[in-house]
Amino acid sequence: MLFFTQCFGAVLDLIHLRFQHYKAKRVFSAAGQLVCVVNPTHSLKYAPTRCAAAQTSTEQGGLPPCHHHEAVHDPQLVPCTCPLFSCPWEGHLEVVVSHLRQTHRINILQGAEIVFLATDMHLPAPTDWIIMHSCLGHQFLLVLRKQEKYEGHPQFFATMMLIGTPTQADNFTYRLELNRNQRRLKWEATPRSVLECVDSVISDGDCLVLNTSLAQLFSDNGSLAIGIAISTSKVHNGEAEM
Amino acid sequence: MLFFTQCFGAVLDLIHLRFQHYKAKRVFSAAGQLVCVVNPTHSLKYAPTRCAAAQTSTEQGGLPPCHHHEAVHDPQLVPCTCPLFSCPWEGHLEVVVSHLRQTHRINILQGAEIVFLATDMHLPAPTDWIIMHSCLGHQFLLVLRKQEKYEGHPQFFATMMLIGTPTQADNFTYRLELNRNQRRLKWEATPRSVLECVDSVISDGDCLVLNTSLAQLFSDNGSLAIGIAISTSKVHNGEAEM
Repeated sequence: MLFFTQCFGAVLDLIHLRFQHYKAKRVFSAAGQLVCVVNPTHSLKYAPTRCAAAQTSTEQGGLPPCHHHEAVHDPQLVPCTCPLFSCPWEGHLEVVVSHLRQTHRINILQGAEIVFLATDMHLPAPTDWIIMHSCLGHQFLLVLRKQEKYEGHPQFFATMMLIGTPTQADNFTYRLELNRNQRRLKWEATPRSVLECVDSVISDGDCLVLNTSLAQLFSDNGSLAIGIAISTSKVHNGEAEM
Repeated sequence: MLFFTQCFGAVLDLIHLRFQHYKAKRVFSAAGQLVCVVNPTHSLKYAPTRCAAAQTSTEQGGLPPCHHHEAVHDPQLVPCTCPLFSCPWEGHLEVVVSHLRQTHRINILQGAEIVFLATDMHLPAPTDWIIMHSCLGHQFLLVLRKQEKYEGHPQFFATMMLIGTPTQADNFTYRLELNRNQRRLKWEATPRSVLECVDSVISDGDCLVLNTSLAQLFSDNGSLAIGIAISTSKVHNGEAEM
């Protein structure tokens, strides 16, 4: 009996995820965009020995299997760049992607334009939503963070970082786009390198920043869909609209 | 001697304004865009008998004279919509523009795309930067406000309101764009009607919101250039990039 109840629960979860996936597809009407459902993870930075898995549910969202290339050639040792955990791991830039996938189970998606659908936006801060994005021969880390910079006033911060050196990062432009209810908000910038800490990017405010009220305006039933596009800096001025 | 000193001061001011004007033109590279230098005004809402003039310096910025059309036909009486002052004036929508120009000396600019250059962003909150914008046969009020929603943490709020009814406002889309240092932030929305209070739009957060850190990233020497474009809602999806 318990087995059947659990099966029923799992089927309901799958239907719910599939529903969110279609909702996001409807919002971002451009055909062919991958929609990736990303569940939140509480930051465990202050539990230094724990390296629990980031609970992303990409596979459940019906996405094709992802490939990844390790095209970064700077040989310097870097600490683990996963913003969720105080992980003791150190390694070369070339193996950061494998470490994030294998140890932290962060999913990786391919495609020039994808839709990142963050669920459960109402959860209390600090909360992170994380995915890796493989594009133009490089891997990027997308971090959405809910954080209380000012006590009692949570804000959302979204940024994209290249798993590569700052010099390599200068060759790219990333764009984050929110689009709902005849409102549209776009942020375009050069990604930072993961050699710079994501915490400092967020504390500098050099990223897409949303107040709770704006986040609610763009959310649909507790989920926030962010369109992501990456291009090389040379085509920055001539790029097409999403 | 005093006369010559004053003349010299006035010439220096003009040179400074002209310099800011060219700087903004450089940032917004599209040819033919009007750049309007807008000086801040402290909100005098809590001094109800005073109806001092908003100190905009458009004429000094070398702009052509502006025309205005009163194309609003809703006959209901509205209070003064100037967000700067607690003004006892009431009148029909058709004469709001004349009232704002004549009593509050708010300048009006024409053109589908203009650049709003707000000076002295460092001034303490509450501060407003205001201009009217005549476009597509209607007049719009652009308000940039520095306000401390949370004590000690000033933010910037920018919105555009139609001097017309909510039904008329639904026919338009406005876009505010910040562009500096390889960063770009765009906000697109349907303007609200001035029959709704600008204070409530800002407290709802349904506008472009900037933290101080983001405002500093987009400012140049204390001035913030905001590109403004208005279009009819029908061409919302197919509009050209600035």
